[in-house]
Amino acid sequence: MKTTPYAELERQYAEILDLEHALEVLGWDQEVIMPAASGESRAQTLATLSTVIHKKITHPILVRLVQRLYRQRKDLTPQQRRAVHLVRNRVMKATRVPATLMREIALAESRGVGQWREAREKKDFSKFAPALSELVDLRKEVALLTARGGRLYDALLDNFEPGLTVSAIDPLFEDLINITVPLVTQVIESGVNVDLTPFVGDFDITSQRAFASEVATAMGIDLDRARMDLSTHPFCGGVAPDDVRMTSRYDTRDMASGLYGVIHEAGHGIYEQGLSKRRSRHPLGGAISMAIHESQSRLWENNVGRSHAFWTFWLPRMKKHHPQLKGVTVDATWKAANAMGPSPIRVEADELTYNLHIILRYQIERELIDGDLRVNDLPKRWNKGMKELLGIQPRNDAEGVLQDIHWAQGAFGYFPTYSMGNLYAAQFMEAARKSIRGLNQRITKGNFKILRSWLNHQIHQHDQVYTAEQMVRRVTGKPLSTKAFAHHVRKKVDAIYS
Amino acid sequence: MKTTPYAELERQYAEILDLEHALEVLGWDQEVIMPAASGESRAQTLATLSTVIHKKITHPILVRLVQRLYRQRKDLTPQQRRAVHLVRNRVMKATRVPATLMREIALAESRGVGQWREAREKKDFSKFAPALSELVDLRKEVALLTARGGRLYDALLDNFEPGLTVSAIDPLFEDLINITVPLVTQVIESGVNVDLTPFVGDFDITSQRAFASEVATAMGIDLDRARMDLSTHPFCGGVAPDDVRMTSRYDTRDMASGLYGVIHEAGHGIYEQGLSKRRSRHPLGGAISMAIHESQSRLWENNVGRSHAFWTFWLPRMKKHHPQLKGVTVDATWKAANAMGPSPIRVEADELTYNLHIILRYQIERELIDGDLRVNDLPKRWNKGMKELLGIQPRNDAEGVLQDIHWAQGAFGYFPTYSMGNLYAAQFMEAARKSIRGLNQRITKGNFKILRSWLNHQIHQHDQVYTAEQMVRRVTGKPLSTKAFAHHVRKKVDAIYS
Repeated sequence: MKTTPYAELERQYAEILDLEHALEVLGWDQEVIMPAASGESRAQTLATLSTVIHKKITHPILVRLVQRLYRQRKDLTPQQRRAVHLVRNRVMKATRVPATLMREIALAESRGVGQWREAREKKDFSKFAPALSELVDLRKEVALLTARGGRLYDALLDNFEPGLTVSAIDPLFEDLINITVPLVTQVIESGVNVDLTPFVGDFDITSQRAFASEVATAMGIDLDRARMDLSTHPFCGGVAPDDVRMTSRYDTRDMASGLYGVIHEAGHGIYEQGLSKRRSRHPLGGAISMAIHESQSRLWENNVGRSHAFWTFWLPRMKKHHPQLKGVTVDATWKAANAMGPSPIRVEADELTYNLHIILRYQIERELIDGDLRVNDLPKRWNKGMKELLGIQPRNDAEGVLQDIHWAQGAFGYFPTYSMGNLYAAQFMEAARKSIRGLNQRITKGNFKILRSWLNHQIHQHDQVYTAEQMVRRVTGKPLSTKAFAHHVRKKVDAIYS
Repeated sequence: MKTTPYAELERQYAEILDLEHALEVLGWDQEVIMPAASGESRAQTLATLSTVIHKKITHPILVRLVQRLYRQRKDLTPQQRRAVHLVRNRVMKATRVPATLMREIALAESRGVGQWREAREKKDFSKFAPALSELVDLRKEVALLTARGGRLYDALLDNFEPGLTVSAIDPLFEDLINITVPLVTQVIESGVNVDLTPFVGDFDITSQRAFASEVATAMGIDLDRARMDLSTHPFCGGVAPDDVRMTSRYDTRDMASGLYGVIHEAGHGIYEQGLSKRRSRHPLGGAISMAIHESQSRLWENNVGRSHAFWTFWLPRMKKHHPQLKGVTVDATWKAANAMGPSPIRVEADELTYNLHIILRYQIERELIDGDLRVNDLPKRWNKGMKELLGIQPRNDAEGVLQDIHWAQGAFGYFPTYSMGNLYAAQFMEAARKSIRGLNQRITKGNFKILRSWLNHQIHQHDQVYTAEQMVRRVTGKPLSTKAFAHHVRKKVDAIYS
C-alpha cells in the first residue's frame, strides 16, 4: 500500500494520541476510582506510559518525517500545513528533553502530590518544600532545554497556551489590576451586605444533584456520551468526544459551590463534545488551548449562569427541588450569586477578585523560575502578595500557599490561562450577544440551544485549525483585550454595590 | 551506576508490567465506566497500547539480554532462573508474532465483541459468523507461528495456562465426563425436586448488596484496597495488589446469582490481594495461571459457600436482610444452593453440570483450530453437543452458541481453565481440611480467617515462584486429579438426590 509522507505523519501521530487517551483515562481513574493505597503503583504506570509517549514523539523516524514535510510545506494544503506545524512544534520541543528526565519528572510529580496532600492536611508548608524545590528545578531544567530565545517562563506557558508569552500577559494583567482593584474598593466601601440565604443554609445533596443535572442537560450536555461523577476536586477530562468525564462535589451548606461547579464543568464538557469526531485521532483534533477551554466553562458559569436572565428562568425550578426557598426573589438570588469581596481561597473567589488570585500565582511562578524567589520563602511571599492585592491574610498555609494542587503536579505556567479564559469568555459572550438576536430573552426562557449551537459552530467544531489568537479575531473581530470583561464586571458591581 | 544484566532485565520487565497495568485499567473502565458510544475510540487505544507492549517485549535489546541470561543461568539463584525462564518464554513467543498482526488481532477482537453483542441481541449467529471466522483465522495464525512441535491448540492453551497441553487435559476431562454423566442421571432419576424458595422470589437489591458485602468482608477482602462495582458480566481485575476491582450484578428474582457472584469474585480478589506487594513490578509477580486463579474463586464459591457449614452461620444473617425468609431452614437453604440439573446457560449451571458446558466448548475449540469444524456449522455442532452431554436443546442461538463473550474476544484456550480450576479447588480444599483442624467447625462459626491465611500462606504469597503443577504438589502432596472433585460432588448428590 503506497502512502504519502503526510498520511504517514497522521498515522504515526494517531498512535501518540491513542496513548494520550490512555493517560487521560488513567488520570481520571486516579482521581475518581482508584483505591488511595495504590498511588505508588499508579505513579510507576503513569511514568512509564509518559516515557513511552515521549519516546514515540522523539522517534528519529517521526523527527525526519516532520522535518521533511516542513521543508516541503508549500506542497501541502493549509490545514495539512497547520497539522505539520503543530506536530513539528511538539516534536522539536520534545527532542530537547531526554526521556530519563521526563520519567524523573513524572515520578517527582506523583511524589509531589503525595507530599502536598500531607502538608496541606498538617497546614505545614515545610513538609511540601523539598518536593516543590525538586519540581521547580526539574521544570526549570526543561524550560532551559526548550526555551527558544525568549524568557524561560515563556517555554512553560507554551505547554498550556501555545505561543503565549510574558510580554503578551503583562499588559493584560496590568489592565486587570487597574480594573479590579478600584472595583473591589467600591464593593467594600459601598457598605452593601448581600444576603446569601438563597444559597447558604441546609440543602439536600440529592436535590442539589438533580437540579444541577437539569441545568447541565438544558445547557446541552449529552449524558449518553458523558459521565458526571463525584470527586474532591471537580474537573472535566475529555477522553474522546464520545467519552467526556466531568466531576463535581456538593456541600449541604453552600449550594452555589456545587451548582456553579457543575455549570463550569458542563461548559468544558460542551466544548469537548463539540469537537469534531472525525479528527479525534488527528493532529488538528482536540481543544485549542487551556485558556480557550477555560473560556467555555467561564462563559457558562459567569456570563450566563450568574446573569439575571438565567435566574429568571431557573429560580422557580430550583424552588421545586428546595421548597424552603419559597419567597426568595430572582433579584435576591441573582445578587447572592454575584456576592463579591476579598477571600483567601481561589476556587471560592467571585469573578471579580478571582483574577487577583491568579495574578499573585503568576508573579510567584515567574519569580521562582527566574530565580528571584527561593521555595522556602514562598509562604512569606504569598502572604505579602495577598495583603497587597486583596488586602487579607490567610490564617495558615492550608488556606494560603498550599491551597492549590497545581504546583505539586509540576504545572507551572498553567494558572495564567484561567484569567485569560475569563477575558476570552467575556469577549466571546459580547460577540454572541451581538450576533444572536434577543439572546437575553432566550436565556430568560431557559433556551440555551442557540447559544450552544453558536459556540459549537464558531469555536468547538474547528478543533485546532486556528490558533487562540486567530480564533478570537475570527469570532469577535478583535484581538483579546480586557474591555469586555471590564464592562461585564463593572456593570454588575455598579448594580449591586452602590 | 553499574547494574547487572539480571537487574537490567527486571528493570525492563517492570516497564512492560506498568503498561499492562494501564491495559488492565482501560479494560476495566471499558466494562464499567466508559460511555458505550466511545467503543471505537477505545478499540484504537487498546490496539495501540497492545502494540507498544508487544514491541517492548520483542525489542532486540531485551531479546539479547534474556538469551544471554539464559545461557548463563547457572550463575543465577533459583528464583532468578525462574524469572528468566518466564520472561524468556514470553519474549521468544512474542518474537514469532509480528506487531502488525497483534494490532490486527486487537482491532478484530474489539469488532468481534461489537458484532457478538448485536448477534446475541438478535439471537442470530450469522451476524457474528464473519467476525468469528476472522478471529479463528487470526488466532490460528498466531498458533502456527508460536507452536513448538506440539499441537496447535497447545500454543493457545499456553497463553492462559502455561505448559498445559491437550494430552494433559484429555484424560482429566474424560474422567470428568465419566464422573458427571452418571451423577446427572442420578439427579434426574431421583425424582427429587429441590425447593428454591430460599433464593427465588422478590429480594430487595440494596439488601442483597448489603448481605453480600458482609460475606465478602468476612472472607477477608480489604475494601480499602479494592472496589466492588456493578457490571453486566461480573469479573475481577487485579490492577495491582492494592487496587483489586471486582464487579457484580444482582437479580431481584434470583438472590443466589448475586450472592454467589460476589463470593466468587471475592475469591479472586483475595488471591490478588494476597500476592506479594514487593513483586508487583517483578517478573515473578502476579497469579500463576488462570486455572489457579479460578481455583481460588471456586473454592470460596462452591467448596465453602455452598456448604452446610456456611449456611449454618449465614442463614440467620441473611434473614436479617430479608425478613421474608423467616421460617426457612439451614437444610432447605443448603439444598437450594446446591440444586442441580441440566440447563442451557454455563454461568447459571450448578457445579456438577458446569464442567459439561466447558467440555463442549473445549471440543468445539479444538475442532475449529484443527480445521475439523467450519464456523458456519457451529450452531449445529453446539446443539448436537448439548444434546449429547446434557440432554437438552437451547431454544435459540442466544441461549446456545452465542451465550459467552470469550470467542468474541479471541480467547480460544481459556475455557478449559475453568474446569481445571474446579478440580484444583476441590483438591486444595481437601488439603485445607486435612491441615486445618476443625475447619468445618470454624466455618459453622463464621470464621474464615484461618482458611484465608492458609491460602495466603500456601498459595497467594508465592506469586509465580512455582508452576501450577509444582504448586498443587506442594500444597496437596499429589498431582492434579479428578478425585477430590468427584468425592465432593458425589457426596452432595447422594445427600440431596437419593
